[in-house]
Amino acid sequence: MSYKQQVLPIEKVFRDPVHSYIHVQHQVILDLINSREVQRLRRIHQLGTASFTFHGAEHTRFSHSLGVYEIARNICDLFERNYSIEQIGIGGWDDEERLVTLCAALLHDIGHGAYSHTFEHLFQTDHEAQTVAILTSPETEVYQILNRVEAGFPEKVASVITKEYPNPQVVQLISSQIDADRMDYLLRDAYYTGVEYGTFDLRRILRVIRPYEHGISFSMSGMHAVEDYIVSRYQMYVQVYFHPTSRGMEVGLSHLLARAKELYTKQPDYFDRSAPLLVPFFKEHFQLEDYLKLDDGVLNTYFIHWLESDDPILNDLARRFLNRKPLKSATFLSPQDDALLEALTSAVEKVGFNPTYYTATNSSFDLPYDFYRPNAKSSRTQIELQEKDGTLIELSHVSALVAALAGQSQGDHRFYFPREMIHEDHSSSYDLFHDTYMQFRAHIHNGALI
Amino acid sequence: MSYKQQVLPIEKVFRDPVHSYIHVQHQVILDLINSREVQRLRRIHQLGTASFTFHGAEHTRFSHSLGVYEIARNICDLFERNYSIEQIGIGGWDDEERLVTLCAALLHDIGHGAYSHTFEHLFQTDHEAQTVAILTSPETEVYQILNRVEAGFPEKVASVITKEYPNPQVVQLISSQIDADRMDYLLRDAYYTGVEYGTFDLRRILRVIRPYEHGISFSMSGMHAVEDYIVSRYQMYVQVYFHPTSRGMEVGLSHLLARAKELYTKQPDYFDRSAPLLVPFFKEHFQLEDYLKLDDGVLNTYFIHWLESDDPILNDLARRFLNRKPLKSATFLSPQDDALLEALTSAVEKVGFNPTYYTATNSSFDLPYDFYRPNAKSSRTQIELQEKDGTLIELSHVSALVAALAGQSQGDHRFYFPREMIHEDHSSSYDLFHDTYMQFRAHIHNGALI
Amino acid sequence: MSYKQQVLPIEKVFRDPVHSYIHVQHQVILDLINSREVQRLRRIHQLGTASFTFHGAEHTRFSHSLGVYEIARNICDLFERNYSIEQIGIGGWDDEERLVTLCAALLHDIGHGAYSHTFEHLFQTDHEAQTVAILTSPETEVYQILNRVEAGFPEKVASVITKEYPNPQVVQLISSQIDADRMDYLLRDAYYTGVEYGTFDLRRILRVIRPYEHGISFSMSGMHAVEDYIVSRYQMYVQVYFHPTSRGMEVGLSHLLARAKELYTKQPDYFDRSAPLLVPFFKEHFQLEDYLKLDDGVLNTYFIHWLESDDPILNDLARRFLNRKPLKSATFLSPQDDALLEALTSAVEKVGFNPTYYTATNSSFDLPYDFYRPNAKSSRTQIELQEKDGTLIELSHVSALVAALAGQSQGDHRFYFPREMIHEDHSSSYDLFHDTYMQFRAHIHNGALI
Amino acid sequence: MSYKQQVLPIEKVFRDPVHSYIHVQHQVILDLINSREVQRLRRIHQLGTASFTFHGAEHTRFSHSLGVYEIARNICDLFERNYSIEQIGIGGWDDEERLVTLCAALLHDIGHGAYSHTFEHLFQTDHEAQTVAILTSPETEVYQILNRVEAGFPEKVASVITKEYPNPQVVQLISSQIDADRMDYLLRDAYYTGVEYGTFDLRRILRVIRPYEHGISFSMSGMHAVEDYIVSRYQMYVQVYFHPTSRGMEVGLSHLLARAKELYTKQPDYFDRSAPLLVPFFKEHFQLEDYLKLDDGVLNTYFIHWLESDDPILNDLARRFLNRKPLKSATFLSPQDDALLEALTSAVEKVGFNPTYYTATNSSFDLPYDFYRPNAKSSRTQIELQEKDGTLIELSHVSALVAALAGQSQGDHRFYFPREMIHEDHSSSYDLFHDTYMQFRAHIHNGALI
Repeated sequence: MSYKQQVLPIEKVFRDPVHSYIHVQHQVILDLINSREVQRLRRIHQLGTASFTFHGAEHTRFSHSLGVYEIARNICDLFERNYSIEQIGIGGWDDEERLVTLCAALLHDIGHGAYSHTFEHLFQTDHEAQTVAILTSPETEVYQILNRVEAGFPEKVASVITKEYPNPQVVQLISSQIDADRMDYLLRDAYYTGVEYGTFDLRRILRVIRPYEHGISFSMSGMHAVEDYIVSRYQMYVQVYFHPTSRGMEVGLSHLLARAKELYTKQPDYFDRSAPLLVPFFKEHFQLEDYLKLDDGVLNTYFIHWLESDDPILNDLARRFLNRKPLKSATFLSPQDDALLEALTSAVEKVGFNPTYYTATNSSFDLPYDFYRPNAKSSRTQIELQEKDGTLIELSHVSALVAALAGQSQGDHRFYFPREMIHEDHSSSYDLFHDTYMQFRAHIHNGALI
Repeated sequence: MSYKQQVLPIEKVFRDPVHSYIHVQHQVILDLINSREVQRLRRIHQLGTASFTFHGAEHTRFSHSLGVYEIARNICDLFERNYSIEQIGIGGWDDEERLVTLCAALLHDIGHGAYSHTFEHLFQTDHEAQTVAILTSPETEVYQILNRVEAGFPEKVASVITKEYPNPQVVQLISSQIDADRMDYLLRDAYYTGVEYGTFDLRRILRVIRPYEHGISFSMSGMHAVEDYIVSRYQMYVQVYFHPTSRGMEVGLSHLLARAKELYTKQPDYFDRSAPLLVPFFKEHFQLEDYLKLDDGVLNTYFIHWLESDDPILNDLARRFLNRKPLKSATFLSPQDDALLEALTSAVEKVGFNPTYYTATNSSFDLPYDFYRPNAKSSRTQIELQEKDGTLIELSHVSALVAALAGQSQGDHRFYFPREMIHEDHSSSYDLFHDTYMQFRAHIHNGALI
Repeated sequence: MSYKQQVLPIEKVFRDPVHSYIHVQHQVILDLINSREVQRLRRIHQLGTASFTFHGAEHTRFSHSLGVYEIARNICDLFERNYSIEQIGIGGWDDEERLVTLCAALLHDIGHGAYSHTFEHLFQTDHEAQTVAILTSPETEVYQILNRVEAGFPEKVASVITKEYPNPQVVQLISSQIDADRMDYLLRDAYYTGVEYGTFDLRRILRVIRPYEHGISFSMSGMHAVEDYIVSRYQMYVQVYFHPTSRGMEVGLSHLLARAKELYTKQPDYFDRSAPLLVPFFKEHFQLEDYLKLDDGVLNTYFIHWLESDDPILNDLARRFLNRKPLKSATFLSPQDDALLEALTSAVEKVGFNPTYYTATNSSFDLPYDFYRPNAKSSRTQIELQEKDGTLIELSHVSALVAALAGQSQGDHRFYFPREMIHEDHSSSYDLFHDTYMQFRAHIHNGALI
Repeated sequence: MSYKQQVLPIEKVFRDPVHSYIHVQHQVILDLINSREVQRLRRIHQLGTASFTFHGAEHTRFSHSLGVYEIARNICDLFERNYSIEQIGIGGWDDEERLVTLCAALLHDIGHGAYSHTFEHLFQTDHEAQTVAILTSPETEVYQILNRVEAGFPEKVASVITKEYPNPQVVQLISSQIDADRMDYLLRDAYYTGVEYGTFDLRRILRVIRPYEHGISFSMSGMHAVEDYIVSRYQMYVQVYFHPTSRGMEVGLSHLLARAKELYTKQPDYFDRSAPLLVPFFKEHFQLEDYLKLDDGVLNTYFIHWLESDDPILNDLARRFLNRKPLKSATFLSPQDDALLEALTSAVEKVGFNPTYYTATNSSFDLPYDFYRPNAKSSRTQIELQEKDGTLIELSHVSALVAALAGQSQGDHRFYFPREMIHEDHSSSYDLFHDTYMQFRAHIHNGALI
């Protein structure tokens, strides 16, 4: 029997709090899970700095990757049983696509790095590009496993991630506005944070999903279940992912790494010793192998090393991050509001903080749902509902709730500053900076800048 | 108002998946949570290597510590409302004990270190001694906060942990066979692993717990709820805490650290550079400050550094640990069975593995419950049930289930060896070590040595 | 101690799947629960015919009433602890209102009868009027208990139900767009049906609710939790309460009772014997005592008796109801569409069904939320959010989701007819009514009339 | 296609709170669910008088029957996939047994009647005999459906229930110490009562169950899951099913029906009018058709009618039952203790209660587990665990917990009496029966007779 078709004599399972069990049936999948690149995801948290706000959310990309795989596997089973191409002809599911789908589901996040988005932004890495690199570089274990399936298979899996794979059903299962990835992370993040608003009815969605010629669609009878998923997604964004405290920690992390990168040019020896695995990134010249050595714990370890640095900003920022001292914030309406932000920034500087490392603006926005807009920068695959007679109707046409969210970015702009600006007692008029503090505070009302 | 009595104007809460919310009402508690020693617990996993078996179990001692605090707080509220010393006289609860109880609950695990038990064993640290040190050393933030409450308060909290505190109610709430610590970890570990057998009825236990003169007891009407807790505890031990795969990883970790310690004497420079924070422990001469810098991520980072070591055993063990390649095992009946273990160990050596670093015996046993035995090495506070008329009856007298478990250690002895001994294909008689492998395998039947 | 102030020495609890425990602290509440009028609610299902669609939903108004009481009790506790009139002055909570609030919460549904809405409609009873009657009639046990509290207390409780009670906080806790009643039934109905969309975050809502001068409001920080409650409510209406099959059973029930009432005038003896407790209602002349004897089981029992009736319509309708044979339905756009409905009705008549008893139109609509409209027929108390500085803002001003639902009735119009019209095989052109059936079926496409 | 093989083009589902969905795939199963005999189970509560203690437990035998079917269906799927006779030969699962298994699972409780055990005891009906009668009587819809499958099929299904069916795998799936019936009712009763101790890990049990030549067995690796199921079963018995209050209501119900039966001989006309459907049972001469007309609501309705009876005992007992006034109780050690029980009974009589209708002894015992005892009155199929090499080991050999419960009946003997004996105030020595009451009370200490 070829490696591709090698099925485990007895299904292997992993206990999972969200899906109860992850069921592994192919030797290929088991080998991928055991590869060092997938095991590395155990050391990368799913939610980055969010665990500073929701202390339960310490889960990793490893468990999320297994979860996405499990949802994809369930969908393949349902498609094969109810809507195979043999049964319903054109628009039906071709079960030959199963293995590529499962591999893409399991590996879709393989390129994520330490403190993902913050790190990427600063060091110009890109997790999708890294994913493709890991899948298609002959030195990785993942590549070697995929290549045993058949020549060209690693590239095939990569093309699903980049959305170039020809079968739109496979692409949309892995990446669309309602895909296995999003379904798992909403449920998983809700479970681990302990919030209830991320919960939607996965079982019901799995009952109404169905393939069609140009991708995946949902029975009209499941409209409210899909609608509920969109609302859950919206709630998770505004209540969890955009939480001001997590963003305050993220800003601090970004400043800390920026300071280190800045200092590296002056004290390369110090960083060669205290942060050897980061050096290739400070130098802006790294190999895939360098990238694969980083994880959240490595960065934290170097921050502990830096507590002894003689640069007062570096060690203060490291201390604030490790001991969870987030920057505070207030919302503001428009990034155009330069004068106000400048005034506040000067106040921060006046009382002694370097504004480059102690203030920031941070804008977090997301589009909970959108229909297809041909001229948009990045157009989206819209969610299609299927009537009994096969007619397709775009979701926001029949859901007032989704119509209310469609095309409306949700989120806010925030100005971040040290908590000392508002929390310490500077009320005595003998305080040197009494007036500066008072002026700063007068600009904040009901949590917003005025 | 004194610091001791300073109550937050509005209760502060933390979302928690197990208890829904953690409620903080005292400024002291909030300050303790924000101290660097407590924040450090965010970087130490609750279950060590168990997450290699149960991938969801990535939770930390930080969330557990908050949970123990929350359970203790609930019990104080219930005691104060229903069984205060004012209401029921002798044997009643004195609410003056609340703050010391809450602090001890929150801080009971503050001395835990990276990969706790493994590390302790190898480097002769001791988490309880470290806890006392952290509570009573003037340089820690925890000490400084506790000392603001009143002089001697840090030592008072420490004496609860060491069970020397005069009020047995307080001591037993924090440490007994059914205390806030165990109640939280059983529920939390069950939640995060996703198993269901750790679940018991906390709400019902909280309804039946009550103080008496010599500690805490439970209404007879709650007997079955207490019984169910004992059974859950037993199930978690045999199914989760003693899982053979986690122990296989733990053995590997222990070997890895032992190898590094061994090599340090020959290559101190290499370790000064690749593992600076571990050096004081290799030297067997460390300060509290050194201890507080370690966490799980620091060890993992150094293991990543060691992947480049030129010692083949060190880098192989590091690779096996990071990429989750556990040693395999089989049970054996008695540690006295020397001849068999020696034969197997020789076989492992014969095919090329250094048995010091690639084999081990590991015995994991626990007493799910015991009644008080005056002559036992470490006698236990037994669980007392209270009849309507105040009579106390020890739990195993009325529960056949508990009687079955009382005094009976549960667990097993296992011999660990490299998976290569049984999993690779050595069936060809041309294989150099064919006979050795076949002999080794003949000793294992139904998972046990024979 | 007066009866009013009589507190149970030990709190009494009832196990509840939704709230874990119902906590009873006053003797008055315990006595009310034990009264025959409250016990009678054990024999009246919460959701009427919905259990024909969701078979798990067999819960009763008794458990719902306890649940509403428990939520109200929780809110009183929170208000007393955080927002008492002593602490915050005007707009604060006066704990003297606790008992009237708890009684109104427990008793708000006391006037519900067998198969509530259907029965009311047909026999012109009214559950709110019955509630007031039960509370204020000297012969009821409920009245006698309330009257022991103090003279006029029964009327006081009744005035909360009728919204005439002077304290708007009390009135709104029991009856507003987000009150203890709705919060309990959404969670309870979701639990018992097994759907997940009715779940919202009760714990979080209880954390952000607060009294103000003119009623109850919610902290701005809890906006998304309130928003999520509104969405859950909407989902429960469209997916559970308006389910076409339950409405098909309800239509059948209504027809069955109407037929019996019609026949009563001709065969009074038969109904005196087969349905004695219904006779006062057939006569349109009943006493409170008659009303209190009815429950769901009484009606079902009489339907079983009627299986032997010699009226073919009565026994057929009884059989269809008992054996769950719902009428089928299709949606239509406007009740003005007379011609189409008439044509379909004639077809039903033509094949032999009396259209009075075998067809119906049924329109189910609900307003998920509305702001205050002074000129509306029945204006609603809008939901107010409170900023840090005390400013109030109406919910739909800050929530795009709620704005999308505000003032928009959700639901549909349906035409009901016997399943024989579409499900039996009448395809043979030899069938006498072949053409009629085919014409009927041609009017239905994708579940709607065309 | 024959009726037997007729599979629904699209699977039909019913929402279920315990199993999420019930999946129906065969036309036969759908027709059985829609039959009047199965629909009748909607009107019979699963737990009889237990809902007087656990108010949430209002679920019916209908939902339980669907649940048993669903578990059986899951097991058939697993057996077919992993252990089919084609794959593993002798001892494997023959999927030809699927339909008979599913029908037996769905219909195993079809013969249950109103307030099952109480009614049976008094009127010498027997639910198992009724089940067989319903399955095999040509006038029932169930028979007609089964008979369409093939001649003899109704008898085949019946023989599974009576354990005479030749394939022991099928018999044990439906009826053994760990069967689909018990698994569903433990989970369902736990869900609806809201207790947590009935919960066990169904998913894990389904993973380890496997067929063997003489029935069903469990992998040794699942030993602890099976052990946990036995403990859950034990906990549900002692905490829920044997609850003293529910038994107090059951005793009252039994007395009430006995009184009616007694009176019938004197006042047949009164009962012909007030309780027509019960008359055949009073006469001890009933047909299957009579039996099928009874349900819990019918009995309750007649109790309401009897509130107007001129027999003071009948109407008082009816009032006590409808308004939930349970008899009180105390435990006693041995039914041989005649003198004490007689003394107490006389006291009850002395203060004016007819002891036949106001006292009782009630003994509730269950064997949580037993191994096979060839000479026992009713020997049990023991639970077998399977080692990797196929060896079978009986459960209590390897589980200390199960060994502790095996063969040990759990439960108690209780003496029931009117609450007036202990709760009213008779402390005045002027009270006529003061001494009698005081003597009675002196016999009860810590809830037990002394």
